[in-house]
Parts: sequence; structure tokens; C-alpha cells
Amino acid sequence: MQPFISLLAPQRDTSSPLYLQIANSLVSAIRSGHLLPGSKLPGTRELAKQLKVHRKTVIAAYNELYAQSWTEVLPQKGTRVARNLPEIKAKTWSKEPDSSFEGTITVPFYKMPPPSPFTPMHPVITPHLILDEGIADNRLAPLDLLFREYRSRLKHSYTNRTVQGALAAGSPLLRESLVPYFGETRGLSIQPSNILITQGAQMSIYLAASLLIRPGDYVLVAEPNYFLANKVFEQLGAKLLKIPADDQGIDLQAAEICCKKHRISMMYVIPHHHHPTTVTLSPERRMQLLELSAKYNFAILEDDYDYDFHYSSTPYLPLAGSKHNGRIIYLGSFSKLLSTSVRAGFMIAHKDFIDQVLRLRVLIDLRSDHLLGDSLAALINNGDLARYVKKANKIYHHRRDKLCELMDQQLKGAVNYKKPDGGMAVWVKFNPEYPLKDISVRASAKGLYLSNGEIYNTEQTSYNAVRIGFASLNTKEMEEAVQILKQAIFG
Amino acid sequence: MQPFISLLAPQRDTSSPLYLQIANSLVSAIRSGHLLPGSKLPGTRELAKQLKVHRKTVIAAYNELYAQSWTEVLPQKGTRVARNLPEIKAKTWSKEPDSSFEGTITVPFYKMPPPSPFTPMHPVITPHLILDEGIADNRLAPLDLLFREYRSRLKHSYTNRTVQGALAAGSPLLRESLVPYFGETRGLSIQPSNILITQGAQMSIYLAASLLIRPGDYVLVAEPNYFLANKVFEQLGAKLLKIPADDQGIDLQAAEICCKKHRISMMYVIPHHHHPTTVTLSPERRMQLLELSAKYNFAILEDDYDYDFHYSSTPYLPLAGSKHNGRIIYLGSFSKLLSTSVRAGFMIAHKDFIDQVLRLRVLIDLRSDHLLGDSLAALINNGDLARYVKKANKIYHHRRDKLCELMDQQLKGAVNYKKPDGGMAVWVKFNPEYPLKDISVRASAKGLYLSNGEIYNTEQTSYNAVRIGFASLNTKEMEEAVQILKQAIFG
Repeated sequence: MQPFISLLAPQRDTSSPLYLQIANSLVSAIRSGHLLPGSKLPGTRELAKQLKVHRKTVIAAYNELYAQSWTEVLPQKGTRVARNLPEIKAKTWSKEPDSSFEGTITVPFYKMPPPSPFTPMHPVITPHLILDEGIADNRLAPLDLLFREYRSRLKHSYTNRTVQGALAAGSPLLRESLVPYFGETRGLSIQPSNILITQGAQMSIYLAASLLIRPGDYVLVAEPNYFLANKVFEQLGAKLLKIPADDQGIDLQAAEICCKKHRISMMYVIPHHHHPTTVTLSPERRMQLLELSAKYNFAILEDDYDYDFHYSSTPYLPLAGSKHNGRIIYLGSFSKLLSTSVRAGFMIAHKDFIDQVLRLRVLIDLRSDHLLGDSLAALINNGDLARYVKKANKIYHHRRDKLCELMDQQLKGAVNYKKPDGGMAVWVKFNPEYPLKDISVRASAKGLYLSNGEIYNTEQTSYNAVRIGFASLNTKEMEEAVQILKQAIFG
Repeated sequence: MQPFISLLAPQRDTSSPLYLQIANSLVSAIRSGHLLPGSKLPGTRELAKQLKVHRKTVIAAYNELYAQSWTEVLPQKGTRVARNLPEIKAKTWSKEPDSSFEGTITVPFYKMPPPSPFTPMHPVITPHLILDEGIADNRLAPLDLLFREYRSRLKHSYTNRTVQGALAAGSPLLRESLVPYFGETRGLSIQPSNILITQGAQMSIYLAASLLIRPGDYVLVAEPNYFLANKVFEQLGAKLLKIPADDQGIDLQAAEICCKKHRISMMYVIPHHHHPTTVTLSPERRMQLLELSAKYNFAILEDDYDYDFHYSSTPYLPLAGSKHNGRIIYLGSFSKLLSTSVRAGFMIAHKDFIDQVLRLRVLIDLRSDHLLGDSLAALINNGDLARYVKKANKIYHHRRDKLCELMDQQLKGAVNYKKPDGGMAVWVKFNPEYPLKDISVRASAKGLYLSNGEIYNTEQTSYNAVRIGFASLNTKEMEEAVQILKQAIFG
């Protein structure tokens, strides 16, 4: 027995409970053949004494072994190592085993049009600092509160008490709590049946566009536009009609010329802080857009992802809050508001449209994480979300001003920008003598990631511009980042 | 001051911290006009005394108010209510405000083919008991460990230290840890570049099929088949060729007749515990399938969602572990393994295929929850996942036997079934004199949800059968459920 006991001596490390350490040592001893199938284990009292641990710890270890099928319990006789060990050894059956995915693919498959917007990088880049295109600061968002709610729901047996098919549109609790929430924050008067919970704004765009666009249809977009929205529409076979925009937003006279020439199915619009340029659509243009949409009967996909963050002004009520006869599909996301790791977006539309979208959604993605949805609902209902939005507005306001101040001081002569009303990023245009392609490489060598701006370019135009997010960095980080950027620009 | 103080008296309830209760009362007092903009708040010492709370609590409440912009702090003078209150009042601009989504939609949009697989129910059904179609028991899965990992990652600043585009294929840590995991459990020799993390098996099916199927293509499926896979293929324009199956799995001679007649793009196969029938594909048929796929050069979408749970036998190594020249796309899910609220699935394929799928994935759904991915990686690396799989196999084994025993005792003469080798459900066929449509309604009246089986029916066949999940119910719940079912059947 002595050599066997020495194998079991627990390390008393802090990473796993003592009983689990003992159980794992026993598993190792069984696996390595030190303990043979059928051999009797010492009594719990005896082993506890030998290992100098409480007997309860040994009992817990034995229970664990039994639960994992490593042991059998003999009435009146104690525990022995199972005669049929529980290792799941999968059966081989192939004449030509070849577990790799190397070589050349022989079957035909559809190739997606280049360029690839994102490619996974190996090794993954974890630079010292990142100037992102505008994401929330995980450190400010009430993620600890969100996951406290999450954890408390994990244990409830009711998590198995909902018919799974009923969750296809998202957490019922979240859809219910969004009714008063969108009433208060956006003046919308809706029902749960008008709401679909998605994994984020991108999925909302894809789903809505899939029902609105048939191959060959004409779609109006601003130029430049959110590049992944354009890619969705093109993927669905749309012909994009790119409309110029000024500091009031999209040029609706140019849009009407298109409407006269072609039957338009849909227009995509980002009314607050257009991506990438951060321009806000003016009230006059909003009115004109609604009139145009009614006159030519096209749908409006209103992507209001940036509604919550305003510093120099208050937001405008959504287009969806005006008379539109179901022509408007309104969408946004909690991922932008809270954290990129929180996957939850929404679509608000006419019930008949939601009913159809739902059918497509289950084909693409059965359902979202309903416990996350329930937890978000709790944060909405108890006011935590509204408190966070207030706080974040104050802090991000300060960070926007700080970034602009730093750019004025440090990057003078190289960049120009217009301070955005709100949102999380500044659209920074670099002067032609400072190509972003080179600056990005030089910054990267100094530990700062900055996009080279290629994702914003179109076939027609190279903008030599980039969105610089200010929300995710604190003052110190921002000072350091702009300092590196300065060196990358001026050498 | 006295009436104002009375407004503030904290409720000392337990749901929110005391300081927040005080802060919220102050906000209410400001909103209701009891405290006017510009008015001075009492000193923290004074208020603490009046409210009989610690001064630190009042300081925390005042800090909260300041963070939310409700107050201004005057040096040497204390705190006063902000003169510009921070209410974000959105601006109205519309001539025709109409915040509802009622009326008739005027714009054309694509209608998805009926029937709708799932419809959201209002009010959502939360029956006393549910016989689901085979989902994990949240109470057994190591969700507490998973979310302990999750929480510990929330605070790390590195969550902002990854370039977001690099996350499109899923958590890099998870993709790395799946390389040895799939090597050990499935004998696959792969690289992270062969792996895409999705939101679940359904998304993996949709993505892969989107690249493999062009409208008009022929696709081989078993009959009956997982209904949502069929719906995906039809949505993409495929013509389904439905192949009969026996207790060895799909009839490959029937499949070859189709191959001779039509150019086949793809075959969808569930090798372990076919959905819905739970049949396992025999080694001989596996071999034949591989040969057929090579001879006629079609792709195989191998949906191995049920690989982990085996009771009467050990699993077979995946088709993907044989020589296939990139023809096989292998997929599965952690949602089945752990909980329907854990949204994480995978696709394993040739790197060139993954590269293309990735481009489509970002259009549909930017990225998955990378913190969830990182947390899953931790559970894989520290062995918690493997331990859980062992335990769950033992418990689910017992539950399968229990369900079959109860059906034999209680439902004799009404149902017949074949005990499945593994998985989480039994395919239960009801005799024609007991129509599931009626039984489902009667069970529902007694507090038991059971699908009416319609989702399994096809145009050709009404099966009068249903999958009955045994994994999510403990013995007591199962006894009660079968007892109710008995009453619903025999009255």
C-alpha cells in the first residue's frame, strides 16, 4: 500500500479542491496500471489517516471516482477499481485512415468575392495598444452585474422549463422589457411581437436584407458606407447605387434621381454617426427621406447602432417613430453599448415582417443565448443599464475631447477631422503625403495597432482615412497611443 | 429639509446596495421637482446622521449622482443639483409622428416557405414538465465552472487587447485547445486554421451548405432527416433526394442510383444517432459512403452533434478521419454537450474551405462571444470538460434505461421504439390509434409539454412519432412525465 499512497499525496496547490486532486491522482494511478481493475481501494477512514486529510475529503474523492465510472461500490465490502474502465476509445473502421485535412479539395464550392474583410491571424495580434474603430470599454460596462444575473439564473431549474422553440425570437423576458425601454429611450410604441433578438446588428442587417433583396434589385447606400453592410447587399445579389453625402447626411436629391431611374427595393441608412464618417442625418433630410420612401415605396433599413452616445447634442427620435406603414426596419445592438463579447442585437419591425425573419433566423442560428437575454432584461428593469449609459456618456464625452485635443497638439498638419456629435470614434483623414498603409506598419512595429484604412476604400475611392475609437482607452492609454502614432507619422 | 429627508429614507431592502437606494431616491426627488436644479444638497455628514447610515454610504451615493451628471461639485462649497439636468430627451422632428408598427406593410418582401418550424408564443409556455427532443441537463453541466472562468476574464484589460477582426473565426484560444481535444477524442489531426467557431451546429450547417449548394443542385439526405437541415438546403435552392434508411443507416445502393441519375453536390449525414431516428451508421456503410463520395466527387456534411454520448457501445471515429481529399466538412456543437444557453459550435474542414466560410460568417454574424470561447478553452485544458462528459455519460445512461423501462411498463401497446446506443433521446413511434396530435393537447392540459410530432412529418409521410429526450429529467421528473403521458394516452 505504501507506494500507492505516495502516489496520492495531494499537492495542496490552490488551483483545484483537495478532493479533486486526490481523485485525479487515483485516476492517474489506475491509468498507469499502479492500480489494477478489480483491486480494492483502502477504506475512507484509513486513507484519510494516511494522507492526513479529513475523511470527508476522501469520501468526496471516492464519490467523484464513482461518478466518473472509475470504481464500483460493493455493498458491505467497500470500493474497488472498476473491471470495465470507462475510457471511451472510439472504434476505428476505416481502411484508409487519414486524419488530416491537407491536400487539394476536389469538390467544387462557391468562392466568396474578395477582399476578405477579416482574416484570422496566427499568432493572433495582441499589441501593446490598439486604436480600434470604436468599441466600448469593458472596464466601464456593468458586466459584473450582468454576469451576476447570469449566474443566479444558471441554477434555476426553470432554465429547462421553457419550450425551446419558443426561444427562437430571443429571450421572452428581454423582448418584454424592451417594450417600455424603447418607449422611454426612443419614443417607440411597440409590442414584443415587433421585436426579434439577434446576435448583433450584423445579423439583423443580414436577416432583414435577405427578405428585402432579390438578385438584381437596386439598393441605395451612402458613399462611403459601412463596408460589411455593402458586402451583405452585394452577397444577396443587389446592385448598389451609391449616393454622396455631406455634413447633413445623404444627398436626397441624388437619391431621388436614382428612384426615377430604377425601382429601388431598399435604402440603408445610419441616422446617428454614419459609419465611417460619423455624420448625423439632419431633421430636414429625415423628413425628405421619409417622403421619398413613401413616394417610391422602398424599405428603409435604419441602423441606429450609435443612438445611445451623444455629447454635443441630444439624439433625434428614430425614423421608425414616424408614419411609415411598416416600411422601416429598425436595428441596433447591445454589443456596441456594453462589450464586443456580449452578443445581443435587435430588430424592430412590423409583426408580419418579424414573423418571416424568424423563419430564416432559425435556419441560420437556432436561437440566441436566452440566459444572456434574461440577464439583460434584469439590468434594464432595475435601471442598471440606464445608469451605465449616463456614466458612459460622461466618460466617453471626456475621451472624445481628449482624443481631439491630442490630435490637434500632436498630429497637426498630418490629419484632419470633424469632431463627432457622439458615438465612439472620430473619422480621421490623413493627408495624402502620409499614407496610412505605411503609418500602420510603422505603428505596429512600435506596439500600436491601427487599421491601414483599406476596409474603408471602395473601387472608386481610396480615402486614406480611418476611424479612431476613443471609447475603449483611458487618458493615459490614449496619450501613449497618440504619441506612438505621432512617431509613426513624422518619424 | 425634513420633507426632503423623508423622501430619501432608504427601504433597506436587500435587492440593491444602500448607497444606490439613496442615490435613486435623490434622482427621483430631482425628477419630481422636490429638488430643483441649482439647489444645494446637505453635507454628507449631516445627511448620514439624518438617515442613520454611515457617512461613507452617503459619499458613495453622492459619487454615483455625480457620475450620472445629476450634480455639480463646487470646490469648498459642496454639492448642488446640476443646473443642466442630464436627461437625454431625444429631439422630435417628424411632422407625422407615429411610433407604432401597425397597419399594412406596403413594401414587398420575400415570404419564407411555410410551415414555420417555430413560432414565438405569447404568453411563453412554461409547463410544469417538458419532454424535450433531447437537450442537456443544465443542472449537471459545469456551467458554474464555465462562468467562473468567464468572470475572471471580464476584468482583464487584455479583453481589449485583441484586434477585433482576428476574432472572426472564434476565440483563438479555443481553436488552439480544440486541436489536441479533437486529436484525443476523435483522432483528427488538424490545425487551428481548420477550425471555425460558430454559434452552434445550425450555423455550421447553414454556412457550409451556403458554399456547397447553388440553386438547382441535388443534395442527398436520409428520410426522415433533421428537419431544419432540410429547410436550409431547400432555402438555398437545393433539390432534395430523400434516401431510405434502415437500422444500419442510410441505404447506399439507393444513394448510388441517385448519383448515376444526377450530379450530386452534397450529402448530409448524421453518423451517430441520426436525427430523428437515433440510428447509427454502420462501419460497412461508412466505408461505402466514402467510396461513393470519392467516385461521384460530392461533399459530405458530417453532423456529429451526438458523438460524446454513448452507453451501449463506443463511438466510431468520424468519417472526417479517413482519406477524403477535403470532401468532408465535420461539425458539432457545445450547446448539445453543455446547455442550450451556451452558444458555441464548430466546423472542421479544409483550410481553403474555412477561409471562404469565414468571409460569409462575418456577413451573417461578425463574431462569436470570444470570452465564452476562452472560457471553454480553459475547461478543455484543465480537464473539467472531459470529467463532465464521463459523469454525464453515466447519468444519461441510467436515464435512458429508466425512460425505456417506464415506457415498457406504462405505455405498453401504445408506443414502440428501439433503444438508442447513445445520444439524448428515444425515437418513439405511436400506434395509429393513438394520434400524437390529440395526445399532445391532452398532455398539455395536464401540465406536460410534448411535441405533437408535426415537425418530423414530411409531405410524403406522417410518422406519428416524436423524439423523447431523457437527458434533462431526473428520475422523479421522468416518472411523473410518463405518468401524465400514460393518462393522456389511455385517458
